[in-house]
Amino acid sequence: MISKAKLKYIKSLQVKKYRNEEQCFLIEGAKSVKEIIQSDFQILAVVGVANFLEKELQLPLGTIEVIECTESELASIGSFQTNEAAIAIAKMKPTRKPAMDNKLLLALDDIRDPGNLGTIIRTADWYGIRSIIASEQTADFYNPKVITASMGSFTRMNVYYTDLFSFLSESKRPVYGAFLDGNDVHTKPVEKGGIIVIGNEAHGISALVETQITERITIPRYGKAESLNAAIATAIILDNVLRLQK
Amino acid sequence: MISKAKLKYIKSLQVKKYRNEEQCFLIEGAKSVKEIIQSDFQILAVVGVANFLEKELQLPLGTIEVIECTESELASIGSFQTNEAAIAIAKMKPTRKPAMDNKLLLALDDIRDPGNLGTIIRTADWYGIRSIIASEQTADFYNPKVITASMGSFTRMNVYYTDLFSFLSESKRPVYGAFLDGNDVHTKPVEKGGIIVIGNEAHGISALVETQITERITIPRYGKAESLNAAIATAIILDNVLRLQK
Repeated sequence: MISKAKLKYIKSLQVKKYRNEEQCFLIEGAKSVKEIIQSDFQILAVVGVANFLEKELQLPLGTIEVIECTESELASIGSFQTNEAAIAIAKMKPTRKPAMDNKLLLALDDIRDPGNLGTIIRTADWYGIRSIIASEQTADFYNPKVITASMGSFTRMNVYYTDLFSFLSESKRPVYGAFLDGNDVHTKPVEKGGIIVIGNEAHGISALVETQITERITIPRYGKAESLNAAIATAIILDNVLRLQK
Repeated sequence: MISKAKLKYIKSLQVKKYRNEEQCFLIEGAKSVKEIIQSDFQILAVVGVANFLEKELQLPLGTIEVIECTESELASIGSFQTNEAAIAIAKMKPTRKPAMDNKLLLALDDIRDPGNLGTIIRTADWYGIRSIIASEQTADFYNPKVITASMGSFTRMNVYYTDLFSFLSESKRPVYGAFLDGNDVHTKPVEKGGIIVIGNEAHGISALVETQITERITIPRYGKAESLNAAIATAIILDNVLRLQK
């Protein structure tokens, strides 16, 4: 049984302002809840249906509050239309400024759509990227839609929000940006310590950030679409970069 | 001024059943409305705010009904939270069974998410694909979210819904499917007349369709994510296929 106060509290964490006040966020659905339990995030509570809590969830011993509820209660407090499993509440973790080592970095210049950000995190995780630099206007990492679209990869990714222009100008590393008139990503390798900048869904890379780009890169087009979705472009670039760095 | 009856009619076209009865569908937002006006779809009406209708829309002469309305009316009848431009209503077009020629085909085995389907259409259009075969359980091409995510590419793509197993078994063409244990897409070329099958978001390629796969292909993984989003996987496969066919 879940109290009305608790339902209201959980629902409030769908909103960034309340997440920041509480320093807590929501993780929804079987896949993501199971992933966070395996991670180093501190979990405060798991709210779920009896069947999932009993049969599918292996909770570590300790201070996690477990609350049983109905599917319709889960739907009312979460962002899913249906949720047959659970919602977890976890503490936010501090992020760290990525070290200036020889690892490939991804930088996001105002990716606004939470689904795109989550998909980018999932894709970056597939390609072995550990840190993402995000401009301050990029969608909130802890937005439930980001968490869900990342399919568990949020537990492995350090997303560091900062002033992107300043970060790039201080980085002293080669900075690659996707434009329509750059070098072909199929043939032109990217340096191992490079930073790849992905622009906003509608406006691309901003004029200020563009001043820090040291090499323009392009995904070859064979048909008629004017552009690619930002997460799709990220994936194609990463796939080519990693292939050419083999 | 727009009548209540018209508002109700437009809103009903968000639902597949009513779209099929009326053989009409909705196109929302400036970009998509402009694209459909340039296409060979028959447009019945454009509902929009005065500023967009007067300054941005160049309608061909003829039988298109133009109705002025407010932004809040657009939001109430459409699927966008905000729409500062217009919604068009157009007639569905018949699709055609793709000819068995030497062109690359994409086949979708139950892609359920409309956003994924729209993004796949946009990406396929970028890579010059003209036809997509979709299983009958794949999301509806005319779903407003598909139209929007395709960013105008829906006007250039023939999406043919059919029994995918039967289509593939009659096709006599090499059929490629993405699995975790196939040939590396980075190095293994796909034949020009090949068919690439993309599986369902949660379950991958179905057991029945798998019997028709003649070659298993795999996107190399460098990190820890368990899988890739279906639209992302489609994009990476197409990018590699086209690169190796150059």
